[in-house]
Amino acid sequence: MIRIIPLGGIGHVTNNMFVYEYSKGDKTERLIVDCGIGFPEEEMLGADLLVPDVSYLKGKENTIVGIVLTHGHDDHIAALPYVLPQLDGQFPIYASALTAGFTRNTLDDFGIKAHIEDFTGGVLQLGSFSIDPVFMTHSVPDTRHLVISTPDGMIYHGSDFKFDWTPVDGHRPDVQKMAHYGRKGIMAALVDCLRVENEGYSLSESKVGENLSREIRDVTGKVIVTIMSSNIHRIQQAIDAAVESGRKVAFIGRSVEENVKTAQQLNFLSIPENVVIKKRKAKNYPDKNLCLIVAGSQGQSGSTLTRIADDEHQLVKVKPGDHVIFSADPIPGNERNVYRLIDNLAKLGATVSYREVQDVLHVSGHASADELRLLLTILKPTTVVPIGGTFRHMNQFKLLATKMGWSERNVLLLNDGDIAAIDQNRGWVDDHLKLKTIIVDGLGVGDVGPLVLADRRRMSLNGMVVVALPVDAATNQIKGQPEVVTRGFVFARQSQELLDKLKNEVTKILPEGMLITDWQKQREEVVEQLDRFVFLETQREPLILLTLVKS
Amino acid sequence: MIRIIPLGGIGHVTNNMFVYEYSKGDKTERLIVDCGIGFPEEEMLGADLLVPDVSYLKGKENTIVGIVLTHGHDDHIAALPYVLPQLDGQFPIYASALTAGFTRNTLDDFGIKAHIEDFTGGVLQLGSFSIDPVFMTHSVPDTRHLVISTPDGMIYHGSDFKFDWTPVDGHRPDVQKMAHYGRKGIMAALVDCLRVENEGYSLSESKVGENLSREIRDVTGKVIVTIMSSNIHRIQQAIDAAVESGRKVAFIGRSVEENVKTAQQLNFLSIPENVVIKKRKAKNYPDKNLCLIVAGSQGQSGSTLTRIADDEHQLVKVKPGDHVIFSADPIPGNERNVYRLIDNLAKLGATVSYREVQDVLHVSGHASADELRLLLTILKPTTVVPIGGTFRHMNQFKLLATKMGWSERNVLLLNDGDIAAIDQNRGWVDDHLKLKTIIVDGLGVGDVGPLVLADRRRMSLNGMVVVALPVDAATNQIKGQPEVVTRGFVFARQSQELLDKLKNEVTKILPEGMLITDWQKQREEVVEQLDRFVFLETQREPLILLTLVKS
Repeated sequence: MIRIIPLGGIGHVTNNMFVYEYSKGDKTERLIVDCGIGFPEEEMLGADLLVPDVSYLKGKENTIVGIVLTHGHDDHIAALPYVLPQLDGQFPIYASALTAGFTRNTLDDFGIKAHIEDFTGGVLQLGSFSIDPVFMTHSVPDTRHLVISTPDGMIYHGSDFKFDWTPVDGHRPDVQKMAHYGRKGIMAALVDCLRVENEGYSLSESKVGENLSREIRDVTGKVIVTIMSSNIHRIQQAIDAAVESGRKVAFIGRSVEENVKTAQQLNFLSIPENVVIKKRKAKNYPDKNLCLIVAGSQGQSGSTLTRIADDEHQLVKVKPGDHVIFSADPIPGNERNVYRLIDNLAKLGATVSYREVQDVLHVSGHASADELRLLLTILKPTTVVPIGGTFRHMNQFKLLATKMGWSERNVLLLNDGDIAAIDQNRGWVDDHLKLKTIIVDGLGVGDVGPLVLADRRRMSLNGMVVVALPVDAATNQIKGQPEVVTRGFVFARQSQELLDKLKNEVTKILPEGMLITDWQKQREEVVEQLDRFVFLETQREPLILLTLVKS
Repeated sequence: MIRIIPLGGIGHVTNNMFVYEYSKGDKTERLIVDCGIGFPEEEMLGADLLVPDVSYLKGKENTIVGIVLTHGHDDHIAALPYVLPQLDGQFPIYASALTAGFTRNTLDDFGIKAHIEDFTGGVLQLGSFSIDPVFMTHSVPDTRHLVISTPDGMIYHGSDFKFDWTPVDGHRPDVQKMAHYGRKGIMAALVDCLRVENEGYSLSESKVGENLSREIRDVTGKVIVTIMSSNIHRIQQAIDAAVESGRKVAFIGRSVEENVKTAQQLNFLSIPENVVIKKRKAKNYPDKNLCLIVAGSQGQSGSTLTRIADDEHQLVKVKPGDHVIFSADPIPGNERNVYRLIDNLAKLGATVSYREVQDVLHVSGHASADELRLLLTILKPTTVVPIGGTFRHMNQFKLLATKMGWSERNVLLLNDGDIAAIDQNRGWVDDHLKLKTIIVDGLGVGDVGPLVLADRRRMSLNGMVVVALPVDAATNQIKGQPEVVTRGFVFARQSQELLDKLKNEVTKILPEGMLITDWQKQREEVVEQLDRFVFLETQREPLILLTLVKS
């Protein structure tokens, strides 16, 4: 029996972190796969990002045999700088060359030194786990699946992937190795289910290259291509298309610049000489000889492309004749920002290509339904566990697998924090950890919880009313008029009458001279009455804050 | 020459309101078309809705010859209760029967009595304007386009539409009338451009009916269909499909219940007897004989479907075997809410059909590119003006029209507030009104402006720090320790140290005994220093509020 504990990555797409446990007698060994950040839900106001809750691992550090990373996306690697300092002890970290490169950049930003080993040594032996990385294709190069073998059986860790038979670097998925282990007998396969709703096969990455060439060919001004910065193969194809039409290439935006540098050092990009120019030199070339590859395809505020579209970028001005290509689709939730970006670029006179008006400027990096069927057919795992999707995707994956003959009890739908047990016959949920949502906000990790978020939410919708009451420090009696100040509630200059009424209301309940006996209770009563009063007057529900000021 | 002033409806899809002006000598007559609400942008925190800024019309009420409504969607009619009270005087309001019915409901909610005339009289003569309504198909029945004739020429007002040759009620668009006016010579056509990015033709509404029947046929539990509540033809088709499979129908949700009632009274719904049951009686029927038509397809918080999905609805409990059909696609910006709804319904055990997993459960009510080409070919207007879309749609429409032979100067892209002049040869922007964004928040109309929103935004992301300082009313000197309270900033119990530091910081700058001389200036200085201090400590930027409390 092996236990699998998703600390993240189930039900929310991002925040991936899996713990594999193998026990023999009293001794348990733990293997960690991935350690990624999560993207906050809309209602987590002000949250920068999420990181997995690793409380479960604290005190168990000496049982951890290592961390293995599947690929270089932030939702699989970028929580390491937050998680490593929380864990006591040093563990070996393993990754493919590019994944290791991206991970080192991330750790460097935090001044964390960690040694990351390359996969080049073949099968990894970490305690009782032996791990064989399987070459796989995805929207970042150098991606791996993992065959995790233990004395009790074998698990296939099939995180983000698609089957691309014409990948840009010619390096196809290692289906022979998959089949080899499949024949030996796989106890369970964890499988990326994000794109299960899409029938058929996802298109090859190389399809995008043809279309980029066609898009760029007849442009008279400069070309701006925006791409997810980790999609090195897409960047390669944009460079190739630019070279074809006699353009120099400049990279703009921190994430793109950094990833390109790392990919070049590790030979994941092949760029002819005299093609790349420094972004500050771009102004020395005529527009018709320029292709800018920029970050910010999701319309993030402050990103390079947003500043360009707002005509606020120092180096790039968009003019009629320029052509902007969105070679990345909006992630659900970002649509409004992306479309605003498109509007603003069009207003500056550029022509803009995006998914609604052009075919295939972007392809998914995830497997469609038939690819999932192919994977299940090659591996023939006894039990399947959909990962990397929300509940509707897992549910759809369950339909797909049961239609292929898996019994209901051999399709295991998990939640984050479930402790799943897997044996040769089936999988089941054995126990459950109560995980916290750990929010990173500025320098704080985990200090923004539900109460703080609820206050932010209320203030965001209705603003705030502050009532400060002067109190005699010696007698504990109210000794003057309350001060009422609001923010985000009503425009104060136009609402003096309302504020005066509010002041009166407070004075009625807490008149001068009143003795403060049980402030907690008195405050609650007053806030309740003010809530009611303000709602009747305005039908708004600002956060009302009552405080005593002693002197 | 005729002037057209969009007070809303250009660049933002919603908030539609157009003023047509005809002048002869000193005398100007004004015709208003539509008066709709807008949906707030994401950053308009706490805004309920938007209404057009009608300042331009104030004082000109005696020149208004009437208001004509094109169709019954809220973004074309629902601002009337806010706008009518702002205008001095009574104007005739004209609409088709169903549009009038929906409008009366909206006005009734506000206790506003207004007389709305039906179109049955044929061509309307309003001052120098004669208006001939053209029957048109859209996602709400009884929609019209308007041919607006003046002594100076004819304008075609082509707001939201598609060409549906197999509409559910059999009432096809009146292309003969369109062609009749087209042959006479149309000076300009305003045209709904929202779906210009979609090549070909939009599917007929009746296509949805076939699929609904198929979806419902084999369901063993109850069926729940969610539909935009004004889409009466969709509701008709859901009823028909329910009847086919021997189910009773109950309507749940205020908007659906009200619209169905109005549509029934006006004979826009044909329901066999003994089919509709009251929602409170639904529990008396076996699930296999039930079809619930519910509001809330956009995942709005508090809506019927959201409460059902959260298992918090009094009357409806979802169980395994039940089937939920989303017969409405998410409006851009609502994706996350809708997908969360789907997840939650699936978790309750229902099977769920939505656009990603089923074909054609929803069709657009707007014309695709070939329908726009057809409209332009029938009407042959000299000048075309795209309306009802964002800038990227207008831009795409311009491409479409110029490829068909219209010259650039005969495709007029407007902004809200532009005063456009149209003559027999062309259209141009003559002048521009500075329009305000009028936000409705609770009972307030227009009292939430940029400053209030900026405060809400900052509080939403970072919370608030309130510093209240006791001051001697007689001497104007600080006479004690500041009180520091926060909300939405950090979890206070864990952050006592930080709050103490903050208090110290304040006391350093404003020590006991200090004389308050120029509070405005002193406050600004202190807030600036505290901003810096808090950012260094936390990398957060809460709104800092400093107030004096005199006693």
